[in-house]
Amino acid sequence: MGDYDIENLEFLFNPKSVAIFGAGKDLNKVAGQVLLHLKMGKYKGKIIPINPKKETIFNIETIPSIKNIPEQIDLAIMAIPKKYIFPALEECIEESVKFVIILTAGFQETNLFDENSRKEQEKLKSMLNLNTRIIGPNCMGIASTSSNLNAVMGINPIPLSKTNRNMSFVSQSGTWAARSMRCSIKHDLGVSKIVSSGNEIDLTCEDFLEYFSFYDKSTQVIGSFIEELRKGRKFIKIASESKKPIIILRAGTTEAGSKAALSHTGSISTRSNLYESVFKQYGIIEATSLSELIDYLRAFSIFLAKGIMPKGNRVGIYTVGGGMGVLASDKCVNEGLEVVNLSTETIDKLNGVSGLPSIWSHNNPIDLIATRDFSTTEKVLKILIEAEEVDMIISITPFGISHQMSSLENLPDMPQKIKEFNEKMLQAYHKSVVDHLLKMAKISNKPIIIPTALYSTDFPYQYEEISDLMDAGVCVVNNVGDAAKTLAKLVKFQEKKTK
Amino acid sequence: MGDYDIENLEFLFNPKSVAIFGAGKDLNKVAGQVLLHLKMGKYKGKIIPINPKKETIFNIETIPSIKNIPEQIDLAIMAIPKKYIFPALEECIEESVKFVIILTAGFQETNLFDENSRKEQEKLKSMLNLNTRIIGPNCMGIASTSSNLNAVMGINPIPLSKTNRNMSFVSQSGTWAARSMRCSIKHDLGVSKIVSSGNEIDLTCEDFLEYFSFYDKSTQVIGSFIEELRKGRKFIKIASESKKPIIILRAGTTEAGSKAALSHTGSISTRSNLYESVFKQYGIIEATSLSELIDYLRAFSIFLAKGIMPKGNRVGIYTVGGGMGVLASDKCVNEGLEVVNLSTETIDKLNGVSGLPSIWSHNNPIDLIATRDFSTTEKVLKILIEAEEVDMIISITPFGISHQMSSLENLPDMPQKIKEFNEKMLQAYHKSVVDHLLKMAKISNKPIIIPTALYSTDFPYQYEEISDLMDAGVCVVNNVGDAAKTLAKLVKFQEKKTK
Repeated sequence: MGDYDIENLEFLFNPKSVAIFGAGKDLNKVAGQVLLHLKMGKYKGKIIPINPKKETIFNIETIPSIKNIPEQIDLAIMAIPKKYIFPALEECIEESVKFVIILTAGFQETNLFDENSRKEQEKLKSMLNLNTRIIGPNCMGIASTSSNLNAVMGINPIPLSKTNRNMSFVSQSGTWAARSMRCSIKHDLGVSKIVSSGNEIDLTCEDFLEYFSFYDKSTQVIGSFIEELRKGRKFIKIASESKKPIIILRAGTTEAGSKAALSHTGSISTRSNLYESVFKQYGIIEATSLSELIDYLRAFSIFLAKGIMPKGNRVGIYTVGGGMGVLASDKCVNEGLEVVNLSTETIDKLNGVSGLPSIWSHNNPIDLIATRDFSTTEKVLKILIEAEEVDMIISITPFGISHQMSSLENLPDMPQKIKEFNEKMLQAYHKSVVDHLLKMAKISNKPIIIPTALYSTDFPYQYEEISDLMDAGVCVVNNVGDAAKTLAKLVKFQEKKTK
Repeated sequence: MGDYDIENLEFLFNPKSVAIFGAGKDLNKVAGQVLLHLKMGKYKGKIIPINPKKETIFNIETIPSIKNIPEQIDLAIMAIPKKYIFPALEECIEESVKFVIILTAGFQETNLFDENSRKEQEKLKSMLNLNTRIIGPNCMGIASTSSNLNAVMGINPIPLSKTNRNMSFVSQSGTWAARSMRCSIKHDLGVSKIVSSGNEIDLTCEDFLEYFSFYDKSTQVIGSFIEELRKGRKFIKIASESKKPIIILRAGTTEAGSKAALSHTGSISTRSNLYESVFKQYGIIEATSLSELIDYLRAFSIFLAKGIMPKGNRVGIYTVGGGMGVLASDKCVNEGLEVVNLSTETIDKLNGVSGLPSIWSHNNPIDLIATRDFSTTEKVLKILIEAEEVDMIISITPFGISHQMSSLENLPDMPQKIKEFNEKMLQAYHKSVVDHLLKMAKISNKPIIIPTALYSTDFPYQYEEISDLMDAGVCVVNNVGDAAKTLAKLVKFQEKKTK
């Protein structure tokens, strides 16, 4: 195909109108789900359900054919049986629909055991042209906060991000695309745009990476889940020229994974180390797990939005548990960060903190040993924020109130007076760990990252605290290792930028 | 010191009586907390609060001095100012108290800036003898389920495990000791015994590892958080001779971490790779993060209790998200597991599963592509349990009900009818993912591990599902990488055992 102006993706993410082929009332069917999501998500444009049997769904009248619509259609979504896709696509091309998302599965990805499916994908390919671009087939859809576009299949609507809408994501895994959107529900991941690219018969993840990198002003952070890069040269050009962090999770790097990928999105990936070396050379930030991916995306999203990236690699650690401090120091050093020696000035200031026991560690990490004075966190963090030798801060502050409360419930025999005493203490503690952290995160000109230092499947006990922090855009990760890894990525990106 | 019969630790974990020095009503003070914990935890022995001012606390009369007690005291706990520790310890030695736990901090660990503290620790050392053994100083205490002994400092009582009480843990980090106990509250970690060993002036982690390995019948899995091994030869002997899995998280492996450790427990660790090679040679299972530590402990605890360890390294993967399957395959291969080709017999059986769409992946991983038939999980898992070529199973089953419900709440405009429809669907889904998994986990003679495949700080959305599974002793981890790593450790241990 010839040249295509990638800037046109603007119409995909901010379409004036969306037509849904096969839209019906049945929410067990994908087309019905998408229609519901568009409606419930308060999509800003016009929704046009297409159904030969004229009916009214969610107070919107369906239209029998796309040919009946006088206006220009920016986006059409197809979740119809394979055999209907070809005539529908022909109609879209005739009507100059700008983008078609094909959610329907069963093409190239099943070719291992179905030659016919491969042929159908080839037939689709032969229909490609520059006026009507295709996303998919075999994808989950797209979402875009700027137009409240929630064109995603699934059981129920996914509300879009409320704040920090600066992170855009393209995923060759549909599940993961949907999943990352779900992460944005309460603990705001700052989603601007999400694309599930599926089999990539036409538009590939490279196209979206290009758009996010060079054309989309609302994107500050770019993420991707890839099984195979189809346009290597284009990818390298983007990676080397993009001024935005690009964070990628790769799958299909082993033979077994590669085989699985083939039956997933129909891609043939490679287990060579080619990707790894390309990523390294061009400063792509690689995540090795879903958790890392979200950690990195969230941290970049938060700190770039606030404009407080680390100026160097020197980290100050505050801890109320010695073992955690030791572990955090190891993890920082292993990630190339410097657990900086505190200056005499900083140590003097810390010695003056009421509430910090005289037996505090007297260096970095700042270990409280044990204290009941709940204002210490704020005082210590303030000194670290002011310390010239510190570029970023890890605050290991145990959370507890919801956990502790649930623990109290397990002890029904406890005398009322003691229960009340405990509750009072716990509330004071909550005030310390959450309010003080929030206050400091707000005034800080340095990244502060908060490892909960608790095992994550036990998180529900601390949900209240973490929820408060996340909602306020404070960067919370699961444990000290995650904190070190995440900060190291920020530092690396800053180094690349200033090179 | 001469020989000591380590079997005597029995009296530490099942003491007939516990004396608490300095016990008072003030719950801001550690001695008061410990007294409360013992009482609330329903400790099976006699509690003896010692306080010169005779008073009644929680309906127990204090006794002015340990000399006033006619019977043998098995355990004394001290959380009193340093200067009182020496006379109190002298009294304990005179009265032949078997064990003394010194919670008080401020000894060796502060010697970087306080020569006097070091001297005090030396003085303590000079008082050591074989009749009265010391745990600590600068520790958090111990817990033992067999005697309902909850001798731990902290804000409030920590209930002990209800089931699978086969995991014992010794930690040089007090925070971590307390933390792992907290993990056992609802999501049963199967705690038998936990020891915070602190500065290890007398009894060290090696002593506890020896006891757990060779003397304690109730322990099937052993865990440890170490900053420094003080008795290297003993450790190697235990590691090479123990028939139980020993899982260790090391801290203080870098210079910065080591420096932090010095001001934490007063230990001087080394950043050499000595530990690493010793661990490898003697089959110690190394965890590199708190999450890994808990994952491994929990998995060994569950599968050893059930007696269903993997017979080989061949893994079967079931997934309802293709990308997750690809990622899981990679992670398995990277961990030395085989993503086994399914036999013709197994594939034939799977083809016969109603509800599995005809476009399912037709090999391992078993990818459903998309289905609304909620009984598929159970049917597929049953076939994998029966498959001779499969030694263990990863079931990537998205959870959802609590998450989806919370998502519905965010859409108040949704028509009531649709809301009800969604709720019905979600409940059916919940039934599928939880009930079916539980049913299969119960009948399985192979380990089944369930990655939630969602980012953990977003766990609260799935809390209900995970809670149900964990409570039933099903092995849930955060993501596919954790699942692969955990299963690989089981395989490695089995290989070591059968060598």
